[in-house]
Amino acid sequence: MDRRQLLTGGAIAAVGTTLAAPAIAQSQPEVTWRLASSYPTSLDTIFGASKDLAEIVETITEGKFKIQVYSAGELVPPLQVMDAVGDNTVEMGQSAAYFYTGKDSAFAFGTAMPWMGNARQYNAWIYRGGGQELFNEFLEPYGVYHLPGGNTGTQMAGWYRKEIKSLADLKGLKMRIGGLGGAVLARLGVVPQQLAAGDIYPSLERGVIDAAEFVGPYDDEKLGFVKVAPYYYYPGFWEGQAELSFFINKGQWEGLPESYRTALATATRVAAANQLTKYDAGNAAALKRLIAAGAQLRPFPQDIIEAGYKETMAMYAEMSAANPKFKTLYDSLSAFLAESDTFLSISDFYFDYSRYIARQKGWDKA
Amino acid sequence: MDRRQLLTGGAIAAVGTTLAAPAIAQSQPEVTWRLASSYPTSLDTIFGASKDLAEIVETITEGKFKIQVYSAGELVPPLQVMDAVGDNTVEMGQSAAYFYTGKDSAFAFGTAMPWMGNARQYNAWIYRGGGQELFNEFLEPYGVYHLPGGNTGTQMAGWYRKEIKSLADLKGLKMRIGGLGGAVLARLGVVPQQLAAGDIYPSLERGVIDAAEFVGPYDDEKLGFVKVAPYYYYPGFWEGQAELSFFINKGQWEGLPESYRTALATATRVAAANQLTKYDAGNAAALKRLIAAGAQLRPFPQDIIEAGYKETMAMYAEMSAANPKFKTLYDSLSAFLAESDTFLSISDFYFDYSRYIARQKGWDKA
Repeated sequence: MDRRQLLTGGAIAAVGTTLAAPAIAQSQPEVTWRLASSYPTSLDTIFGASKDLAEIVETITEGKFKIQVYSAGELVPPLQVMDAVGDNTVEMGQSAAYFYTGKDSAFAFGTAMPWMGNARQYNAWIYRGGGQELFNEFLEPYGVYHLPGGNTGTQMAGWYRKEIKSLADLKGLKMRIGGLGGAVLARLGVVPQQLAAGDIYPSLERGVIDAAEFVGPYDDEKLGFVKVAPYYYYPGFWEGQAELSFFINKGQWEGLPESYRTALATATRVAAANQLTKYDAGNAAALKRLIAAGAQLRPFPQDIIEAGYKETMAMYAEMSAANPKFKTLYDSLSAFLAESDTFLSISDFYFDYSRYIARQKGWDKA
Repeated sequence: MDRRQLLTGGAIAAVGTTLAAPAIAQSQPEVTWRLASSYPTSLDTIFGASKDLAEIVETITEGKFKIQVYSAGELVPPLQVMDAVGDNTVEMGQSAAYFYTGKDSAFAFGTAMPWMGNARQYNAWIYRGGGQELFNEFLEPYGVYHLPGGNTGTQMAGWYRKEIKSLADLKGLKMRIGGLGGAVLARLGVVPQQLAAGDIYPSLERGVIDAAEFVGPYDDEKLGFVKVAPYYYYPGFWEGQAELSFFINKGQWEGLPESYRTALATATRVAAANQLTKYDAGNAAALKRLIAAGAQLRPFPQDIIEAGYKETMAMYAEMSAANPKFKTLYDSLSAFLAESDTFLSISDFYFDYSRYIARQKGWDKA
């Protein structure tokens, strides 16, 4: 089999393709790296991916390649992880690319784009649709190499103190939400607020904010929102999927022996795949408990979904016009999704749809 | 982090959990294995997973652990791969567990169960919902250890020479379809036929059979069915997901040093993850070409979907009553899906649904 073909197929896309051939160094040298995460240990599904990959790499190399994992703030401020990797303060980081949209709006393509496809579609684009190559090209000036870090699946639209009956109820609503999702909701009248995870609950309780979005049932449950803002809305159309990121200092990456680079990329891909299965199993169990604890599950009113879609597309047009790097990634992902939708809407989606109807109608009982 | 927790989280579920502690043998010995696949090289997405994992393992171990990959029939008959692994004729095999339902109906849980969830749900069950442990327990008497081998996603319902307008049109229809899908369709009046891949096209052309299901657009396109049976139906409710299998001789697996076992399990998980992204990208592009070549894309009439669901559930009740091993796996997967459905139907499914409506209605153009 053609090596290029394999490598562009995996998380190990750059080995032998977009990077110069590595210096083949001493075989199996002792290497110790530090990985700084933007996430606290309490987000165990996300933070666990870093622990997983470090353990796999250490086991495979019989202890010769060690990666020491540090949680949010232990070594570097959480929102500066990528910078710390770029300047080689740490060799590797776990973060979310969209934390860095202040530098360039195109960073959002590494994480989540409102309304742009689900986890399987994003994975197919990043691993097999040219996404990984384009995103690493975009990252060239930052001195980092990027590997996808695992998906959360579609997130929830958050917790609200009061029921939302129509688009009008969003006007003036103070909501904890960041990134492009916050930008879209601002166009619908929401007043977005930036708050660290630990500050959300007390702010909701005291009514300083009216609503907050975080991740999904598994993570949301731990922060106790159900007690103070019981209306739990879906879908979180601004994060139909969200991919975490591993950033590796480019010089460090290129300096690894090929065996270590493959071990690291392979372990990273497994950690990423595990993260989604953990969320899928954990969210389902947590949602059941949240409903029992009084969560009022609600779909967004139709006018919010419509306006949310319309404003998102208008925003993309503006961003594409303003930033050619944004446009390059946007055009690539859009074209990929158009083709993917035609297939998935008649295969997996139509199967799910038929199955939900069958269960709801109880066709087996008829 | 707790090692047990990591390992039950990955494809490497058995290391240190369900198997006895391995003999820690010589560090990094020279090992050469043979892997026999049930699949021909022409099914490059599936067969490619074997090539991928062999290359990753060899690179990671710097050539010390080699896996030589053989395609269908080169070493063993395709439908006897698992047996050859069990009796140590080869150390490892790539196959589909449901080829072995003649031995026990419960083998089907390793591959595809009609109407029982999509690829993400199956992965969440096998990796995080106890599926992998239960399935390997079931496999104990066969001398093999099982690792999931990658998913196809929801398959198509196949190619038909004539349009199918209602359930009545299935009566007496001669169709190439095997496994539990064939058993369900037989209950709807279809006459299932077993045919090797290479015999399907000429049989369809001459009218020896009226219809054939195979995989999905990417694989189906290569066999040219569109020219002789242009009606292309969906959804393939009997394979809402289909997972391939890697079987490893149990003694060989337990005899590997821990570093090699982890390298193999990790590489297998990556090859499995790659397979789904390759299908997702490849199916989308192939479907577009097939439509241009004249494929008539059709949903199954509603009465077929209803009767298919009803007969599937009746069949499961009979099989559970007849086979306690089937019942154990069925109860586990059913309970997992019930919880999973509640979550995914409001998260990813509802997001996809909203997005398809938005695109169809052109809300951004309004």
